[in-house]
Amino acid sequence: MIPAYQRIADDIAGLIHSGRIAAGSRLPSVRELAAQRNVSIATAVGALRALEFRELVEARPRSGYFARLPRLTTPEPPISRPPARMRSVKVSDIIAQMFSAASTRAPDAVPLGAAFPDPELLPTQSLQRATARLARTTPRLISGYGTLEGSLRLRRWIVARYLRSSTAIDVSELLITNGGMEALQLALHAVCAPGDAVAVESPCYFGFLQLLETLNLKACEIPTHPRSGLSVEALERVLTSPTGRTIKACLLCPTHSNPLGATMPDADKAALVELCRRRNVALIEDDLYGELQYTERRPLPLRHFDPHGEVMLVSAFSKTLAPGARVGFIAAGKHTERVRALKFAASVSTAPLMQEALADVLDGSLYDRHLRRLRAACEQQVQQAMRCILESFPDGTRIVQPSGGFLLWVQLPEGADTLDLYRRAATEGVEFAPGPLFSSRGAFGDSLRLNCGHRITPRIEGAFRRLGKLARTA
Amino acid sequence: MIPAYQRIADDIAGLIHSGRIAAGSRLPSVRELAAQRNVSIATAVGALRALEFRELVEARPRSGYFARLPRLTTPEPPISRPPARMRSVKVSDIIAQMFSAASTRAPDAVPLGAAFPDPELLPTQSLQRATARLARTTPRLISGYGTLEGSLRLRRWIVARYLRSSTAIDVSELLITNGGMEALQLALHAVCAPGDAVAVESPCYFGFLQLLETLNLKACEIPTHPRSGLSVEALERVLTSPTGRTIKACLLCPTHSNPLGATMPDADKAALVELCRRRNVALIEDDLYGELQYTERRPLPLRHFDPHGEVMLVSAFSKTLAPGARVGFIAAGKHTERVRALKFAASVSTAPLMQEALADVLDGSLYDRHLRRLRAACEQQVQQAMRCILESFPDGTRIVQPSGGFLLWVQLPEGADTLDLYRRAATEGVEFAPGPLFSSRGAFGDSLRLNCGHRITPRIEGAFRRLGKLARTA
Repeated sequence: MIPAYQRIADDIAGLIHSGRIAAGSRLPSVRELAAQRNVSIATAVGALRALEFRELVEARPRSGYFARLPRLTTPEPPISRPPARMRSVKVSDIIAQMFSAASTRAPDAVPLGAAFPDPELLPTQSLQRATARLARTTPRLISGYGTLEGSLRLRRWIVARYLRSSTAIDVSELLITNGGMEALQLALHAVCAPGDAVAVESPCYFGFLQLLETLNLKACEIPTHPRSGLSVEALERVLTSPTGRTIKACLLCPTHSNPLGATMPDADKAALVELCRRRNVALIEDDLYGELQYTERRPLPLRHFDPHGEVMLVSAFSKTLAPGARVGFIAAGKHTERVRALKFAASVSTAPLMQEALADVLDGSLYDRHLRRLRAACEQQVQQAMRCILESFPDGTRIVQPSGGFLLWVQLPEGADTLDLYRRAATEGVEFAPGPLFSSRGAFGDSLRLNCGHRITPRIEGAFRRLGKLARTA
Repeated sequence: MIPAYQRIADDIAGLIHSGRIAAGSRLPSVRELAAQRNVSIATAVGALRALEFRELVEARPRSGYFARLPRLTTPEPPISRPPARMRSVKVSDIIAQMFSAASTRAPDAVPLGAAFPDPELLPTQSLQRATARLARTTPRLISGYGTLEGSLRLRRWIVARYLRSSTAIDVSELLITNGGMEALQLALHAVCAPGDAVAVESPCYFGFLQLLETLNLKACEIPTHPRSGLSVEALERVLTSPTGRTIKACLLCPTHSNPLGATMPDADKAALVELCRRRNVALIEDDLYGELQYTERRPLPLRHFDPHGEVMLVSAFSKTLAPGARVGFIAAGKHTERVRALKFAASVSTAPLMQEALADVLDGSLYDRHLRRLRAACEQQVQQAMRCILESFPDGTRIVQPSGGFLLWVQLPEGADTLDLYRRAATEGVEFAPGPLFSSRGAFGDSLRLNCGHRITPRIEGAFRRLGKLARTA
């Protein structure tokens, strides 16, 4: 399924990322590579070109290909150390503040704030054609409610897709939802009562915090490594503490997380599943960025390590295919009955037209080709953005190397105030997501999240540099 | 805007409904009518034909037109007398029971259960064309999230529409939602905390009860007249009682309610708004059936009587235009900021494509013509269904005369058990909504709600009669 050149490129990329091929060292020549891997010259050329496109190697005239890796020179923020406290959440004020700023901003502001891919990177034309065709030919997709659980064809595709990652979910536990956020709300609602606490990463996607606030749940922020994600050890310590009993669920994004871009190693994922099972804590996995890895294979979902259907797996097509479709899903495992009842009460059913249009597009081979392009573009854009930041942000700026996706978490030198920076940048037409959005306790005042979903045009590059200049003059 | 023949027909219908033209009495001849009303012969014929179509008059050869009104002979259920108690809600079990029955039922079961109009009565082709065109021409409707508040064009149409009923809402307080249910959930969520009580009608739409259960709110059922709806006097008594202070909101369907089809008189609506304002109780109006009146003018919304934006007005296009669009809305008045934050947390935005397609169709003159046909069909179908019921159900059956919409609330003779009837009817391929679904205390065991949204074909008529036979053999 994956072409040979791509497999070889991924393999070499892995060696570069892990440092086993050092930055600056010479790669095998085309002929050497073809011989080593037992492939044609064309395939070897393809692999090196792909690496060049991903800016992992550079061709030097008459010298060959060399590994380059600006990322290796970036210092990263330390592991977060939030206090082990259950805390009521109040983030909607600050988010409302962002909103009103966003609505009064110049209409041409550079959107480094919200997390979404460049529309030009999405196969929108194919979806437009499928949608138009279905709208014309299938009246019941407009005149009928559809079913509570959603399109059977789409649910079957999802099941088959996860099976490719050795993850078994059953079509009968799958429910299509109004985007990923509705699915996450249903999941939390199914297992928590008002006043309960939920363990989250630190920093944590602000949408998670909003949901906790909405549902009157407390947040317990868990120490999180910028590249390997939530610390299972730290979670275990909290769970076994006297107040740990109030934690009824753990809600996290274990693969290419938002905002860190961290991915938990398989061993940690397995340990987390086992810990939550043992402690009777519901586990809610947000797999929204799961397919945006920079390497050949997508990391395994938490659900892979769960033979009992105890992990609730949530995802959506908003980051990979069509934000405007507003189609997400949940595999609710043993909580399926409860989640179905909640979904019925919340919105009866999800609009059927876009579900079928997605199923149409996903059923073909387009999706895999599209994802390969999208992932390569994300990796390249993130690299380019990092270079801009290294060149223009103040000395002492730290950046997390994401494992996938298109988000960059940046920590400015001590004393920086990214809420203030946010206001100053808004007047210059640049948006981003300030760090305190990602904490129930207003932490991360020196950090920010940048969306690198967009092609790095001169205009976008200029925005990064303007931001750096503003950060230097704080 | 309303053609003359229709205005005359509505006028005469009103006289028949109110009894000022008695059933069986002769109407003016075509010539007399034309002279009386100062219209052409063609207009007078049109008016009488329209009344004939609505089965309010019958033409007797060589004798003229005569008023007919089977409805005047139907005994109706008494006003409900629920105890003034705050009660936790647990309806999801019984609804889950319905669901599992529905999923194992014969696929050709006659759908008298769920409340929806016959797809053949909807202008689906126009919507299909609009949707297909927009899908082809406007990529951002698929590739972009759209805005939090939804289509400006659709919101402007909604504002203009309510202005026609002397009801002023502001485009800035309007938010498009995933159907009416999401809007209702946002409204309740905005003004209630877990443990609070909410005043509801009795019987009460089961979707309301599910929402209360979901949000951990208690229900306080208020006595309700089968034709004039919620008793404001009874509500006032409860609110001034010692436990009344826990009631934080009143959630009701004041116009063509579900399940009764009741409409509160204007004076009661005004009194309710004033009472809730005085007592600081949030008022949530579900106007879902508001445009399905059988008379010329639609009854005024509660919101009309509220100059301060204290009533939250909720509705959707699911019962009049396109169930599958899943597009609803809320005019949140002074709660707008809170509702916006909750909507963002719940689902970010509503899928934009169907919003624009609806706006396309609504902007033309098609909608008013469509609504006239739909309302006439609903009234006729309800009348036909009532005739079937009167002929085939047990003696002593009571029926509520709805003021609009397509739902019939039927009370069987004492001792009937409509949950048992539900199970027996399911095996014969007939579905309906049993009475206990409409109460937080399992009341209305002798009642049921029948959907008359479908054209009364011989198959549907047969289903009504089979149901009557089963009810007789209980």
